[in-house]
Amino acid sequence: MPPTNHKFRLAARPVGMPKSSDWTYAEEPVGEPKEGELLVQVLYISLDPAMRMWINDVRSYMPPVGIGEVMRALGLGIVTASRNPRFAVGDHVSGVFGVQEYAITDGRGVTKIDPRVVPLPKYLNVLGMTGMTAYFGLLDTGQPKPGETVVVSAAAGAVGAVVGQIAKIKNCHVVGIAGGAEKCRYIVQDLGFDAAIDYKNEDVKQSLRKQCTKGIDVYFDNVGGAILEAALANLARGARIVVCGAISQYCNTGPIAGPSNYLSLVSNRATMKGMLVIDYADRYAQAGAEMAAWMAAGKLKSREDIVEGLTTFPETLLKLFKGENSGKLMLKVG
Amino acid sequence: MPPTNHKFRLAARPVGMPKSSDWTYAEEPVGEPKEGELLVQVLYISLDPAMRMWINDVRSYMPPVGIGEVMRALGLGIVTASRNPRFAVGDHVSGVFGVQEYAITDGRGVTKIDPRVVPLPKYLNVLGMTGMTAYFGLLDTGQPKPGETVVVSAAAGAVGAVVGQIAKIKNCHVVGIAGGAEKCRYIVQDLGFDAAIDYKNEDVKQSLRKQCTKGIDVYFDNVGGAILEAALANLARGARIVVCGAISQYCNTGPIAGPSNYLSLVSNRATMKGMLVIDYADRYAQAGAEMAAWMAAGKLKSREDIVEGLTTFPETLLKLFKGENSGKLMLKVG
Repeated sequence: MPPTNHKFRLAARPVGMPKSSDWTYAEEPVGEPKEGELLVQVLYISLDPAMRMWINDVRSYMPPVGIGEVMRALGLGIVTASRNPRFAVGDHVSGVFGVQEYAITDGRGVTKIDPRVVPLPKYLNVLGMTGMTAYFGLLDTGQPKPGETVVVSAAAGAVGAVVGQIAKIKNCHVVGIAGGAEKCRYIVQDLGFDAAIDYKNEDVKQSLRKQCTKGIDVYFDNVGGAILEAALANLARGARIVVCGAISQYCNTGPIAGPSNYLSLVSNRATMKGMLVIDYADRYAQAGAEMAAWMAAGKLKSREDIVEGLTTFPETLLKLFKGENSGKLMLKVG
Repeated sequence: MPPTNHKFRLAARPVGMPKSSDWTYAEEPVGEPKEGELLVQVLYISLDPAMRMWINDVRSYMPPVGIGEVMRALGLGIVTASRNPRFAVGDHVSGVFGVQEYAITDGRGVTKIDPRVVPLPKYLNVLGMTGMTAYFGLLDTGQPKPGETVVVSAAAGAVGAVVGQIAKIKNCHVVGIAGGAEKCRYIVQDLGFDAAIDYKNEDVKQSLRKQCTKGIDVYFDNVGGAILEAALANLARGARIVVCGAISQYCNTGPIAGPSNYLSLVSNRATMKGMLVIDYADRYAQAGAEMAAWMAAGKLKSREDIVEGLTTFPETLLKLFKGENSGKLMLKVG
């Protein structure tokens, strides 16, 4: 008898924070791969802020997840059956497998990974989209130069932690903005940031003025809202703002708040630029090799926040929007 | 007996639209130029949206005009006395002479102009900061390529009209956004824009979708607010937004409205960049020569809205913020 496949389907478009009733938990037969397909048993599921955007009914870089569809998610797994010559049973793979225990795929966008090089979860963290977003967002879009001041928000988050460490490797003055004393301690003492600003207990605008005496040259924004405005108020001439995300705004029940002081871009001749990591697919390998070398040299640290159990998905996802995760958030399945 | 000098001084920081009580009209002696200085009789005073920002008490690219100081303004005039070897009596000059009949200056930032080349008012329009802003904002910051779609707001205004015509010269598809049927007729029939959108009588977002079937490649923004949001909703991948101004927001009594859909920069991998014309001073001469040639060839037209009388300054300035000027607004003095 084939194993059953448990999965989460989108039941309704959430308003604000996704509620448990926005999801349907289903038990279905696994199914059999057809010619050209493979069956993947999912081991880890990546939980990412972008998931909140994927379930809005708006035009974006990808179509939204439809009502009734399996929730989209990146993941890691092991091939348990294959009718695709590129993959053999036992291969470890990463891809967009969805929030479920088993995925059938034609292999497009699926990559083989090697758990002997680094532990599996790192392939969803530094060596996955998280790390690639940090690497290309900072280096390609932000273009930091040695000695410049780089500020990153959600600095103890998965992307922010990598951004700050790469900026240190590039000899920048690095200031991280994070929520709470423990996250601030982590980024300074464990990750080597020059300074941390606790947005829950400090006036971010004033603290940025104090920590960035020559202004901000590169601001890597993961949060939007009031912190983006505080950064705009402290730009150096010619500053670059990398717009990666706006997690403070994703669960708004009304429109996203645009930065009321965006004309700071004019007085500072500054740039605000959006980036999507998928545009850099042809350079992932090179970036991965460079980051693996930094990890091996102890210059690039990372941690994962691994929650056990597929069924916890609805509540575990909310940790992201409440700032409760410490490190890259993912589900361990099966 | 030396002539008297009439002038407007800033009396109070305006809230919203500047009121007549925010200004003091004064009659004072002209004074005598000291060694190294010259006396300029002002003939034309440029009225610009940026003036509204110069009187806010905020950190920007220039210090704000102080309470009690003569209002800052660009102008044209004729030298009536000189103790500066660079200037002779009878020279026509442009510079920051203020809202007054006579200015004494040490000559820094003062440029000689020749009324035999083009009529004097053109030196405050296409051959002045207005034209330079359009030229460098579009070409240097916007980087339009032939065949791309360029959209400009306040398109019948002084800067917008030049932006659209240069974009046509560069073989772009050009759409202007303006208020009212007459301005829309003007930019299409007289200036050669491909299409006009009347923001007072159309849904700008929908009309942009119709006129820009492949999306907007370059959006030159003079207005901010809802029109900026409509443009952000219609970007092409890799779009560039040139942030020149936000005249719809300058007279707000509260904060400026930031664009609530700025995350369109992410999904479209787009850039929003501020520019200030003063950074291009070393290239004004080259740009002026190129634009004079376009004017002579009939490819670059412009018009001035010249109001007589210094005393009308407080009410004439408001024409800008009410969209009542047709062409470059200036005062004719004396």
